[in-house]
Amino acid sequence: MGVGRLEAFSDGVIAVAITLLALQIGVPDHLHGHSLAHALLANWSHYAAYVVSFTTIGIIWINHHAMISRLKRIDQSILLLNLVLLMTIAVLPFATDLIATYLGRPTGQSTAAAVYAGCFMLMGVAFGALNRHILIRRAELLEERVPLAERRQILRRAIAGTIPYLAAVGLAFVSAYLTLIVCGVVAVYYALPAASRRAFVD
Amino acid sequence: MGVGRLEAFSDGVIAVAITLLALQIGVPDHLHGHSLAHALLANWSHYAAYVVSFTTIGIIWINHHAMISRLKRIDQSILLLNLVLLMTIAVLPFATDLIATYLGRPTGQSTAAAVYAGCFMLMGVAFGALNRHILIRRAELLEERVPLAERRQILRRAIAGTIPYLAAVGLAFVSAYLTLIVCGVVAVYYALPAASRRAFVD
Amino acid sequence: MGVGRLEAFSDGVIAVAITLLALQIGVPDHLHGHSLAHALLANWSHYAAYVVSFTTIGIIWINHHAMISRLKRIDQSILLLNLVLLMTIAVLPFATDLIATYLGRPTGQSTAAAVYAGCFMLMGVAFGALNRHILIRRAELLEERVPLAERRQILRRAIAGTIPYLAAVGLAFVSAYLTLIVCGVVAVYYALPAASRRAFVD
Amino acid sequence: MGVGRLEAFSDGVIAVAITLLALQIGVPDHLHGHSLAHALLANWSHYAAYVVSFTTIGIIWINHHAMISRLKRIDQSILLLNLVLLMTIAVLPFATDLIATYLGRPTGQSTAAAVYAGCFMLMGVAFGALNRHILIRRAELLEERVPLAERRQILRRAIAGTIPYLAAVGLAFVSAYLTLIVCGVVAVYYALPAASRRAFVD
Repeated sequence: MGVGRLEAFSDGVIAVAITLLALQIGVPDHLHGHSLAHALLANWSHYAAYVVSFTTIGIIWINHHAMISRLKRIDQSILLLNLVLLMTIAVLPFATDLIATYLGRPTGQSTAAAVYAGCFMLMGVAFGALNRHILIRRAELLEERVPLAERRQILRRAIAGTIPYLAAVGLAFVSAYLTLIVCGVVAVYYALPAASRRAFVD
Repeated sequence: MGVGRLEAFSDGVIAVAITLLALQIGVPDHLHGHSLAHALLANWSHYAAYVVSFTTIGIIWINHHAMISRLKRIDQSILLLNLVLLMTIAVLPFATDLIATYLGRPTGQSTAAAVYAGCFMLMGVAFGALNRHILIRRAELLEERVPLAERRQILRRAIAGTIPYLAAVGLAFVSAYLTLIVCGVVAVYYALPAASRRAFVD
Repeated sequence: MGVGRLEAFSDGVIAVAITLLALQIGVPDHLHGHSLAHALLANWSHYAAYVVSFTTIGIIWINHHAMISRLKRIDQSILLLNLVLLMTIAVLPFATDLIATYLGRPTGQSTAAAVYAGCFMLMGVAFGALNRHILIRRAELLEERVPLAERRQILRRAIAGTIPYLAAVGLAFVSAYLTLIVCGVVAVYYALPAASRRAFVD
Repeated sequence: MGVGRLEAFSDGVIAVAITLLALQIGVPDHLHGHSLAHALLANWSHYAAYVVSFTTIGIIWINHHAMISRLKRIDQSILLLNLVLLMTIAVLPFATDLIATYLGRPTGQSTAAAVYAGCFMLMGVAFGALNRHILIRRAELLEERVPLAERRQILRRAIAGTIPYLAAVGLAFVSAYLTLIVCGVVAVYYALPAASRRAFVD
């Protein structure tokens, strides 16, 4: 299978997952005597979670592309590790719905936030595993020869992304809001030109 | 990342968002003693909102394509501004559901209409920001050299599109129906060969 | 805009619409003392409507491709007529849900069936209008020169497809089942190698 | 129609179907006095079914690609058999929701599991029919000349995949859990580099 085919299918799954995120927002049906503006504002956690998840998936799409485009050929393990990565991405609309629904509720918000950050962490681990396979085990599939030291550095940076998510899982039991904020900060950090340009140059 | 890749991903998100619009129509479940024809006709706001939103997203797809196809390369800011634009497009099925659900209800229809037109306006602002970055700040990425005066004119026209949406937000508090009509007129106007050909020629 | 871009976007919308069809099937939630097998069999209209709609959209995809691939360039009217066609395709998951839900119910099944066949007819009309524009008004956009007589014949065949749907709308008031059968027969007829090969050769 | 077009459309349908799988997971709404962690754990069948179905569709995507990429041209029957295959894939989110909902319930779990494995079997049969048409009946459409004995062997292996699904249908009446396990084992088996490399080499 060609690199282009793998990329097109991955882009398809990521495009569907990122667009399905908005389905969880939900139109308030009964206003219970309040105004619609009140009901919409009470739904703020859904918009916040939408923005954080959309940005995160968008960044992952950019990084996924940067990684795959380094390849001239793919092997069976890349296909399968990529499938695992897509499996963790396709589950994010569920995780987003979960944290948005439970944020601020008296019961379950810590669990919901931990699961949310945990799904991002899982995605990071899958991304790291795919990166590791490409950069360390099958470097001969790369378009250009890259020195081992440099490949190791790219990998370290890719894996470093999972650390704040691990912290966000732990912070969920302090405050679910904190978890969402940390996830948002990670997304914004990677979206900033400086950070991402660095990621690209590598 | 190549221009083609950015376009393919954007097309994917836009294609999913435009097709999800129909999910909000919804099959009437209980007829409450009325005929199905009656129940379907009572749902007219869902069809009207579907047509307006579908046409608008379709026009945005055409314009997005016209803008991106002017590029020979993309930079990191284009990637991110494009992601913000897609974020405002992916939310439109929600906004469409919102206005369709509340149009004609005694409570909330002004708010729903204002949010609907506000989402279109947001999309227009994101589109304008992306256009501005391409045409003014990074004109060297354009396929062909275009004089500054002409680039400014293209940008002015792109930004002009947000003005009727701003008006539509205000009109929501006069009549929610008026908001939907204005949004529909904007879509039809940009769909008319003359207007859009002008937009293309630029 | 290139022909390839138009095709890719149309393929995207059609692929999403055809896959969303299955969402309307729905898992029975309460068994009301019956077995699950009983509840699943009672849902037969959803499977029948799924197969008919899936086949029909699949055939339309094939025909859409055959038509677009005849073009070497596209104009603004093709873009817009194509958008209208996609608008009628994206609404088919709703129409499929409608007939599947009401088939066999004491109230509303004729209306549901008429709307279902009416949506197919609308799709046929949009397809005919797009065909007519390409074949008669803008024949210079065709990849190869085709004599007018032959172009008229292709158009007549494309338009002929709407006649059975018109009949199916009328038959809805005799029997909703008959409508679904006619729509299914049309799909099977166009799917048969002989008929479609003829459509292709033209 | 070119091979690339057929592949792109099929990839689109498969990408949407695989991503819709996660919609069936569902966020628990009422906790009935339990913790959210308890409610999420009680939903385990949804995660298990998600992983099994996602992996299976992923493998089918890889095999579909391997098969289509052997072609230099396509005929009308390939188009239609491929449409039937896609019809069986697009229904898998429903089948996944069905088994995940009924697994462990006192009523209906055998039926749900039998339908689940039955849908996979149907997909296998459609895949086999498409393979048979390509390999035996229209071998002249293949990119490279492959001896008949070898083509028969590839076909036998493709068809062999339906046997464990047939067994899984039968096992549903012993234990629904067993059915899910068998389907999972089949997916893992085909995902293992050795097995799939063999499938690729053929």
